[in-house]
Amino acid sequence: MTYNKPSNSRIRLGMVGGGQGAFIGDVHRIAARLDDRYQLVAGALSSDPARSAASAADVGIAADRSYDSFEQMAVAEAARDDGIEVVAIVTPNHLHFPVAVAMLNAGFHVICDKPLTSSLEEAEELAALVKSSGLVFAVTYNYSGYPMVRQAKQMVADGELGEIRLIQVEYAQDWLATNLEEQEQKQALWRTDPTKAGSGGCIGDIGTHAFQLAEFISGLKTTELLADLTSFVGERKLDDNASILLRFNNGAKGSLWCSQIAAGNENTLRIRIYGDRAGLDWSQENPNYLSFTQLGESEQILSRGNASISSSTGFIARLPAGHPEGFLEAFANIYRDVADQLVAHGHNQHTDSDVLLVPGIDQGLRGMEFIDKAVQSNALGNKWQKFNNE
Amino acid sequence: MTYNKPSNSRIRLGMVGGGQGAFIGDVHRIAARLDDRYQLVAGALSSDPARSAASAADVGIAADRSYDSFEQMAVAEAARDDGIEVVAIVTPNHLHFPVAVAMLNAGFHVICDKPLTSSLEEAEELAALVKSSGLVFAVTYNYSGYPMVRQAKQMVADGELGEIRLIQVEYAQDWLATNLEEQEQKQALWRTDPTKAGSGGCIGDIGTHAFQLAEFISGLKTTELLADLTSFVGERKLDDNASILLRFNNGAKGSLWCSQIAAGNENTLRIRIYGDRAGLDWSQENPNYLSFTQLGESEQILSRGNASISSSTGFIARLPAGHPEGFLEAFANIYRDVADQLVAHGHNQHTDSDVLLVPGIDQGLRGMEFIDKAVQSNALGNKWQKFNNE
Amino acid sequence: MTYNKPSNSRIRLGMVGGGQGAFIGDVHRIAARLDDRYQLVAGALSSDPARSAASAADVGIAADRSYDSFEQMAVAEAARDDGIEVVAIVTPNHLHFPVAVAMLNAGFHVICDKPLTSSLEEAEELAALVKSSGLVFAVTYNYSGYPMVRQAKQMVADGELGEIRLIQVEYAQDWLATNLEEQEQKQALWRTDPTKAGSGGCIGDIGTHAFQLAEFISGLKTTELLADLTSFVGERKLDDNASILLRFNNGAKGSLWCSQIAAGNENTLRIRIYGDRAGLDWSQENPNYLSFTQLGESEQILSRGNASISSSTGFIARLPAGHPEGFLEAFANIYRDVADQLVAHGHNQHTDSDVLLVPGIDQGLRGMEFIDKAVQSNALGNKWQKFNNE
Amino acid sequence: MTYNKPSNSRIRLGMVGGGQGAFIGDVHRIAARLDDRYQLVAGALSSDPARSAASAADVGIAADRSYDSFEQMAVAEAARDDGIEVVAIVTPNHLHFPVAVAMLNAGFHVICDKPLTSSLEEAEELAALVKSSGLVFAVTYNYSGYPMVRQAKQMVADGELGEIRLIQVEYAQDWLATNLEEQEQKQALWRTDPTKAGSGGCIGDIGTHAFQLAEFISGLKTTELLADLTSFVGERKLDDNASILLRFNNGAKGSLWCSQIAAGNENTLRIRIYGDRAGLDWSQENPNYLSFTQLGESEQILSRGNASISSSTGFIARLPAGHPEGFLEAFANIYRDVADQLVAHGHNQHTDSDVLLVPGIDQGLRGMEFIDKAVQSNALGNKWQKFNNE
Repeated sequence: MTYNKPSNSRIRLGMVGGGQGAFIGDVHRIAARLDDRYQLVAGALSSDPARSAASAADVGIAADRSYDSFEQMAVAEAARDDGIEVVAIVTPNHLHFPVAVAMLNAGFHVICDKPLTSSLEEAEELAALVKSSGLVFAVTYNYSGYPMVRQAKQMVADGELGEIRLIQVEYAQDWLATNLEEQEQKQALWRTDPTKAGSGGCIGDIGTHAFQLAEFISGLKTTELLADLTSFVGERKLDDNASILLRFNNGAKGSLWCSQIAAGNENTLRIRIYGDRAGLDWSQENPNYLSFTQLGESEQILSRGNASISSSTGFIARLPAGHPEGFLEAFANIYRDVADQLVAHGHNQHTDSDVLLVPGIDQGLRGMEFIDKAVQSNALGNKWQKFNNE
Repeated sequence: MTYNKPSNSRIRLGMVGGGQGAFIGDVHRIAARLDDRYQLVAGALSSDPARSAASAADVGIAADRSYDSFEQMAVAEAARDDGIEVVAIVTPNHLHFPVAVAMLNAGFHVICDKPLTSSLEEAEELAALVKSSGLVFAVTYNYSGYPMVRQAKQMVADGELGEIRLIQVEYAQDWLATNLEEQEQKQALWRTDPTKAGSGGCIGDIGTHAFQLAEFISGLKTTELLADLTSFVGERKLDDNASILLRFNNGAKGSLWCSQIAAGNENTLRIRIYGDRAGLDWSQENPNYLSFTQLGESEQILSRGNASISSSTGFIARLPAGHPEGFLEAFANIYRDVADQLVAHGHNQHTDSDVLLVPGIDQGLRGMEFIDKAVQSNALGNKWQKFNNE
Repeated sequence: MTYNKPSNSRIRLGMVGGGQGAFIGDVHRIAARLDDRYQLVAGALSSDPARSAASAADVGIAADRSYDSFEQMAVAEAARDDGIEVVAIVTPNHLHFPVAVAMLNAGFHVICDKPLTSSLEEAEELAALVKSSGLVFAVTYNYSGYPMVRQAKQMVADGELGEIRLIQVEYAQDWLATNLEEQEQKQALWRTDPTKAGSGGCIGDIGTHAFQLAEFISGLKTTELLADLTSFVGERKLDDNASILLRFNNGAKGSLWCSQIAAGNENTLRIRIYGDRAGLDWSQENPNYLSFTQLGESEQILSRGNASISSSTGFIARLPAGHPEGFLEAFANIYRDVADQLVAHGHNQHTDSDVLLVPGIDQGLRGMEFIDKAVQSNALGNKWQKFNNE
Repeated sequence: MTYNKPSNSRIRLGMVGGGQGAFIGDVHRIAARLDDRYQLVAGALSSDPARSAASAADVGIAADRSYDSFEQMAVAEAARDDGIEVVAIVTPNHLHFPVAVAMLNAGFHVICDKPLTSSLEEAEELAALVKSSGLVFAVTYNYSGYPMVRQAKQMVADGELGEIRLIQVEYAQDWLATNLEEQEQKQALWRTDPTKAGSGGCIGDIGTHAFQLAEFISGLKTTELLADLTSFVGERKLDDNASILLRFNNGAKGSLWCSQIAAGNENTLRIRIYGDRAGLDWSQENPNYLSFTQLGESEQILSRGNASISSSTGFIARLPAGHPEGFLEAFANIYRDVADQLVAHGHNQHTDSDVLLVPGIDQGLRGMEFIDKAVQSNALGNKWQKFNNE
């Protein structure tokens, strides 16, 4: 029940990307630190050497382990007895692939931000490499780290909803409702640039989260989709809004809406799953609660930390009920579970069921297939596109 | 500011349908009574003469003005000096058309439940008749009677949202999640029977409300739709769930989800409209509030009865802020506005702008076109279908 | 299950007060009309004869039954064969007593607005008169007409909360946060004037509602209170805010806060009751739901119209779940129940349990005792004052 | 804008209490770690030496810096060149005083859990010692670390509410609704034992948080209180529920309710502050939002991370709007601000205004005065007790 481990057993972590001015790098570092299972010892935090060095100093990486490039870092760390064990990749999307390949080839486990790569082809190649490597590869679909999301997944698996009929998932923001990229806002610039973000705009940046959550909680696989993508703002080259119809392998249907131009939405990720016995409703902006209604019964508000919840997912919750956990704790759950996975891997152990909660290369690959099919469907005039679910 | 008028000026109302065991008949009667503008004096409340008579006695209709059939009522009331002025049609869908035709031909104004008819062809024929008759014809798309819906419409019209980009509307229930019609439940029986409901199931019963609300508030016209309809329960012949993509005449997009099998949803009608300046969010189950967020500003919760709201829509609100109004008051707003329309008609006056808030034959016809296109789109494998917007 | 009765059996209703410009008169009229159980046939709507006549015309009262004074009305109506059966008193507080006495003495049943009178002495005298008269006397503590309030009462009575330990009730508004009476606002003028409102300001106007709700739902009797009253605005003579500690006859404790200066509160009446097994939470501004949590279990959101609720209180609900009812429907429930009570009285029948839900002279008297003790406690420096619960 | 500092500048932290089985120790450790400003290097984690050693190993404290007693730790660490700089005291209440005295005398800064001590006398003695020592002393009134609480404080200070009239604060839980202490539950045992908790039960454990929040946000000082304390469960010696009336130094009034027996409340800390221009409402269980309503205007929902919020309190927020922060982040804000305070102290600098947000010895002392006056008021039959506000 304690989440603190002796510091001499902390896992040695390296990072690529996440230098000054980045957002997600700080998130990864806090998540790694929260349960004291990692020690950040090396980094290639920026492609600009000066910035890389300054950023490293900021986050307590020794100067001699701050590298000018990820290639350099891979070689140098592999050569050290106390080299990194795992590397976090927190660059813009287009670098995920080359960095991941370099790190796997150097023998390092990988924690990679989503979406996995910038094209489905890269993703497939990477998946093959991961499988042959035998290394641990996690993709930070961090929303699946929320305790009540895991509770939802458990309830579906336990049959509490009956047969799933319908999934409604949505992820809306408004920060791209104006032409931020014209104002050179760094986060907007690369996300709206196909050479850096890949072929998906909003669908890659947040749609993949929604898609992953639908499959993660339901345990279903999408069989086909029909997508309508739009760029509402200026000459934007990538989608900033998408409406997508989904069909699942048990006959269930769904719809997914993602948007970065929906004025008034900060980070509104919500998923509703309806079975023939009951329905679930979860919203990321109030993540400690899960609404559950059995047909004909009153709605129940399940609460993280409540005794009955704890028995199934309680190991995840660090705090009693009523003491809200948030985004960082959910992110840290992914990091903690990866730590368990790495420990198990080090002992050649099978990983237990909890570790299966960590999104891995397969989920990373699914996300890329989602982007690919959505772009194709839209290009073909909103036609159904089948997934490759052999 | 008073809503009570001398009883000697109360409008003489007849009703077809709404006998014992019906649901919506009571709603219409309460709505008519709430502001004391009508007097229910005649009825053909059931197609079963005994039940018709008993029902009439229950609701205070004199025995000699309770009729065995709507045809009989049309003739007899037309012959009286004190005959009805307007008739409310609250039967199952398939009777709307013949009753409406009979009543218009007898010279009566009509308040008709939705959807307008059971087929688009009937609807078009009826629309032509209404236009040639010069009579008032209202369709009880009652959700447009909610004060905060009217406030939303006003705000869009005033440009407070800027150019509309996106409309997300949904209407979910769960009462048909099991096979109620097999249990001979009266409300379920006719709604799942194409000979009584028409070609739309869920899309006709509640989808049309969602569709009407989208066009009513936004002031836009749908140009095409792509629909995916499903019957999840048993051998049900009509849809009980639909996901529909919409495109509007200004280039805006939208999506509409309606369901009667979404466990845990009682009557969850919600609409969100996003413009390039601001967004709106309204939910029928908490109807006295409207969320409004301008880009970059804090969300505001507009409240029915608040002074600034009253100035635009306050005449509708009967109560101060914080004293919740509900479904019946919204329904009664439609009745009250029809009363104003009838008074104006009686004086050959132009109806003022408020009266334009009453959904009329055009909106009734739009709803039928919505059903028709949705069924076609689905039958053709989810292809876009264009509306006839000449 | 129908709420409509033949109009020839509608109860003949008179009204005192409620002329043009009044708020609560319209509410009473709509409530009386909603279920078609009453016919408003006579009135002394204003103490100003011209206004009285104009107001009567507005609301459909025949000119010959519009009276210049309540005394005149009592005499004239008593003399008619078709005279009123019951009278609604909707004047400012100081007139409740003389009007009620006149009407009871004329043999009319009474529906009286709250608080009962303007002093405890009057209330006691009136209570004695009611008892000796054998007539029906209802006090419109209208919040006890909400279905979910009645559901709460039933749950407490059924022992679902266990032994009650604690009641927290609050009623906050902000409309008197500025010196409205100086601006001659009619509603503010009499409510802040001790010669018209009596000795209680906020405690009389809304505190009595909160107090009544606490005793109504819990079934407990207050044994003593300690009150801290304040006038925050200008030279206001009556309290506009009060914090009151309560003790109940089973040993439970409570606290009551009422305020008319709490910026941002429209009509925030909320009650929470905690027993040794479970707790309840209800808010007037979202009145169709009731939160219920058993110790160690998840919160349940009980919904008006849900099947299990309907079995206990469903006869009250006019609409299915998810179709919100509001303030007027709750008010109308009081009127409907009084109608049942009058019908039973006419047949010398015992009234059934439902009728016991109507607040009567005893609850009216309790409210006056509440005001009286609160004022005394405050005057004595916030000392406990005992109720007279023999 | 980065919260990570070079690890070679991390502050050396010791801890007393917080061994295996404790709750709050883990919270302090995570809070200290979150922003990477501290390094936990020494501890006397339990009064049981074996448990102390095992706990130290768990949290990565080297064996030679795990001590059997706090006295031993004070001496040994003071003697080291690399000894601790600051110590966190996370024991049951009765040990706060002796540990704090020992640590201050050894020259260490202190971060102490609340309430400050187990009696007002101890608190006063400790306060004198802190002042003479010149050392930094923080009390973890952690709820004042929430960004929206700080936003509220700023808004009051900026006059956005006008003159404060009324403060309603409540903190309700239900975990002591049954006799947990009889079941030897560790957390319940000491909190209901006056020899360990001091003279306050619920008022000390959570009431002090509510009290601190009221003074922290409003900037007012309580001048007197009147308290009604109750023990509802079994033979419990300390209060498990309290209703307290408050008066403030500007003439404002308030009431405070705290309870640990209110079934259905997990950790419901809520504060509402009403001024003559506007009102504020904040709830700990949904802490990223703050409701703000100006008289006559619509309610606004201020959101952590929103641009306008960021300008005043944004440095505290680690995440963009819509990415919820929770209890641990708020706790970590206290730790981070203490780190800034320690850095400033090390440079003999004046601490800037942000550091003033850290609750110090004065707020610790106020909390003890609150407990003391509440117990006295209750013992004297609920009489007003004045604070010592010279």
